[in-house]
Amino acid sequence: MKKTLIIILFLQIFFLSVSDTKKSVLAEDQLPSWDSGIREKIVSYTDMVTDPKNPGFIPESERFAVFDNDGTLWAEQPVIEELFIIYYAKKMIEKDPSLKNKSPFNRMNDFYSNGKFVIKDRRVFDEIVGIVHEGMTNEEFQKTAEAFFRETKYPGLNVPLEKTVYQPQLELMNYLRKKGFKVYICSGGESDFMRVISEKYYGISKEQVIGSELVFEYNENTNVMIRRSKLYTDNNGRAKAVNIYQRLGRPAVFAVGNVRSGGDIYMLRYSQASKYPSFQLLIDHDDEKREFLYSESDNISLEWAKKYNWNVVSMKNDWKQIFPK
Amino acid sequence: MKKTLIIILFLQIFFLSVSDTKKSVLAEDQLPSWDSGIREKIVSYTDMVTDPKNPGFIPESERFAVFDNDGTLWAEQPVIEELFIIYYAKKMIEKDPSLKNKSPFNRMNDFYSNGKFVIKDRRVFDEIVGIVHEGMTNEEFQKTAEAFFRETKYPGLNVPLEKTVYQPQLELMNYLRKKGFKVYICSGGESDFMRVISEKYYGISKEQVIGSELVFEYNENTNVMIRRSKLYTDNNGRAKAVNIYQRLGRPAVFAVGNVRSGGDIYMLRYSQASKYPSFQLLIDHDDEKREFLYSESDNISLEWAKKYNWNVVSMKNDWKQIFPK
Repeated sequence: MKKTLIIILFLQIFFLSVSDTKKSVLAEDQLPSWDSGIREKIVSYTDMVTDPKNPGFIPESERFAVFDNDGTLWAEQPVIEELFIIYYAKKMIEKDPSLKNKSPFNRMNDFYSNGKFVIKDRRVFDEIVGIVHEGMTNEEFQKTAEAFFRETKYPGLNVPLEKTVYQPQLELMNYLRKKGFKVYICSGGESDFMRVISEKYYGISKEQVIGSELVFEYNENTNVMIRRSKLYTDNNGRAKAVNIYQRLGRPAVFAVGNVRSGGDIYMLRYSQASKYPSFQLLIDHDDEKREFLYSESDNISLEWAKKYNWNVVSMKNDWKQIFPK
Repeated sequence: MKKTLIIILFLQIFFLSVSDTKKSVLAEDQLPSWDSGIREKIVSYTDMVTDPKNPGFIPESERFAVFDNDGTLWAEQPVIEELFIIYYAKKMIEKDPSLKNKSPFNRMNDFYSNGKFVIKDRRVFDEIVGIVHEGMTNEEFQKTAEAFFRETKYPGLNVPLEKTVYQPQLELMNYLRKKGFKVYICSGGESDFMRVISEKYYGISKEQVIGSELVFEYNENTNVMIRRSKLYTDNNGRAKAVNIYQRLGRPAVFAVGNVRSGGDIYMLRYSQASKYPSFQLLIDHDDEKREFLYSESDNISLEWAKKYNWNVVSMKNDWKQIFPK
C-alpha cells in the first residue's frame, strides 16, 4: 500500500516536471467544442478567480457552479422526465390491461401526434404523473428509472438518452472541477430521477443534485421511504434562487441555464448576489439542424441577459459539436 | 508554484517512508478523549469499511456521517439558539425602549428564574422567535448571529460558546474525515444560525449543514433574500430521516445523536437502511459534575438503542474530557 503511494507520488512529480503547457493551450484542449470567443471569456474568468494575487480571487471552498438540466445539460424536446411518465404508465398497463380502458390511461394516445410526443392536455398528463409517483419506495423508483434509461431511445434523434447530453457542457463541467469548482445541478426535474444518471452522465454525485422534491413518508419499522405524488419543493423560477441558498448557504458564483420558459432567470440573476465575481451562461436553442429551434413567447431570458450582462451561448455558432460521438 | 508542489510531494514521500504506526496507536492518538471500549468499536468499524478487501467495504463516495448539533456537538442546557433569541430581543429593546412595555417583550423576565434561563411559557417565547426572525436579509442575520457568538458567554459554565463544544466529537469528526467520510450536521437548529459557526467550530462547511429552514423571499431587483418567520422545514423527528435522504440521495452510514427528546431516533434508525454496514452513537447526558444530568421522560432513545443495537456513549464513563482546553 505504502509502496504504491510512493510510486504514485513519483509519477506525479514526473508529470509535473515534463508538463510545460500554457494556460490557453490547456483550455483549448479542455474545451475543444467551444468557440474561441466564449471560451476565452470562460478562461479569463477562471484565471481571475483561481489566482490568489488577483483581487477577484475566490477561495476554493467558495467556488460553486450550478447547471440547469433540461435544455442546459441535455435535450428537452421532448423533456426526458415526461417520456419516463409515459414509459411507466405503459408498464402499469402491461401489468394490468384493464387500466387501458380507464381514465386517465384511456387518453394516453393523445400524447402522440404524427408520431411526435406532444402534451395537448396538461391536466390529463398531470393526473398520470400523480399516479406514477404515488406509493413507490425510493428503491423501487430507482430501479424503474434505471430500466427506463437502459431501454429508451430519444424520439426524433433516435439515440440512447445518454447521447442527448451536450458535449460542450461535459467539457465545461470537467474544466470547472479541475479549477476547484463544486458542480451542482439545479433543475426543475425531480431529484431522484436525475440522481439515477447524474454520476454516470455528468460526473455529479447525488448530494450535488438540487431538484424538485416529492413528499416522502418515512416508516421506521420497515425502514423505507414511500414517495407521495405531492410536491414538497417545486424547484423552478424564484424557488431556484431560494433553494440554492438553502442548500449551499451562499449564492453559486457560476450559473448556467437556457432559454425556454424563463425558469432559469432567477438562478442566473442570483449568482450576481455573490460578493465574489460571478459568471452567467444562457444557452439559446437556435440550431435547427443539429438540435432543435425554439424560443420564448415573452423573450424574458434574453432580455434579462442583456440587462444584467450575461453571456448568451448560440448553440449554432458557439458550439462546434452538440452531442457526444 | 511547480517547485513548491514538487517539494510538498517529496515531503509526503519522506513522511510515508518514516511513519510506521500501527492502526490502534494511530486511533489512540486521534481519539484521545474516548474511552478505549467505545474507541475500539469505532476503529473496528472504520477499519472494516475502508478496507477494499473486506466485504463491508464502503466506496469513499458513499461514506456520509451525520451529527445532531444541540446536545451532540455542543451543550444544550440551555439551547444556544434560544439564548440568541433573547440576545436579539434585548438588542431590539435597546434600539427602541418603548418595546419594553409592550407584549411580548414585557414578559421577557419570565425566562430567568434565580438567574437561570428557563422557558416557562413556550407561547410567549415563540412569539418572540417570530419577531426576531421576521424580515431580516440573510446578510443582516449572519452579522447579528456573528456578534452574538462573539459577545455571549454560556450561562452556568461561564465560558465563550465555542468552549461548550464537546472535545471527543471534534476528535471523532476529524478522525472520520481522515477516513474519507463527508461529515454533515443534521439538526433541528435553524440552518443559517449553525452555518455562522459550523466551519469555525466544527470544520463543517456551510453546504454540509442540514437544519430547520425558514421561508425565504427572493427579490430579483435588490438581489437579496428576506427571512420570514414561517418554518419551511422543521428538521426534527421523522423529518430528519427524510431530509437526509432529500439532501444526500441515500442514507448516511454513520449517525450520532443524543438522549433528550427522542428527536434523533429516526435519524439513527434511518442509517440502518443503508445497504452498507452502518454505525450509531447515542450520547447519554449522565455526567452531572462535568456537564449536565438529564434524561427523557419516556426513555425512548435508550429503548431504541437497545432494540436496534446502537452504541450508547456515557459521557461520564466514555469521555475522558468533555470540553476543549
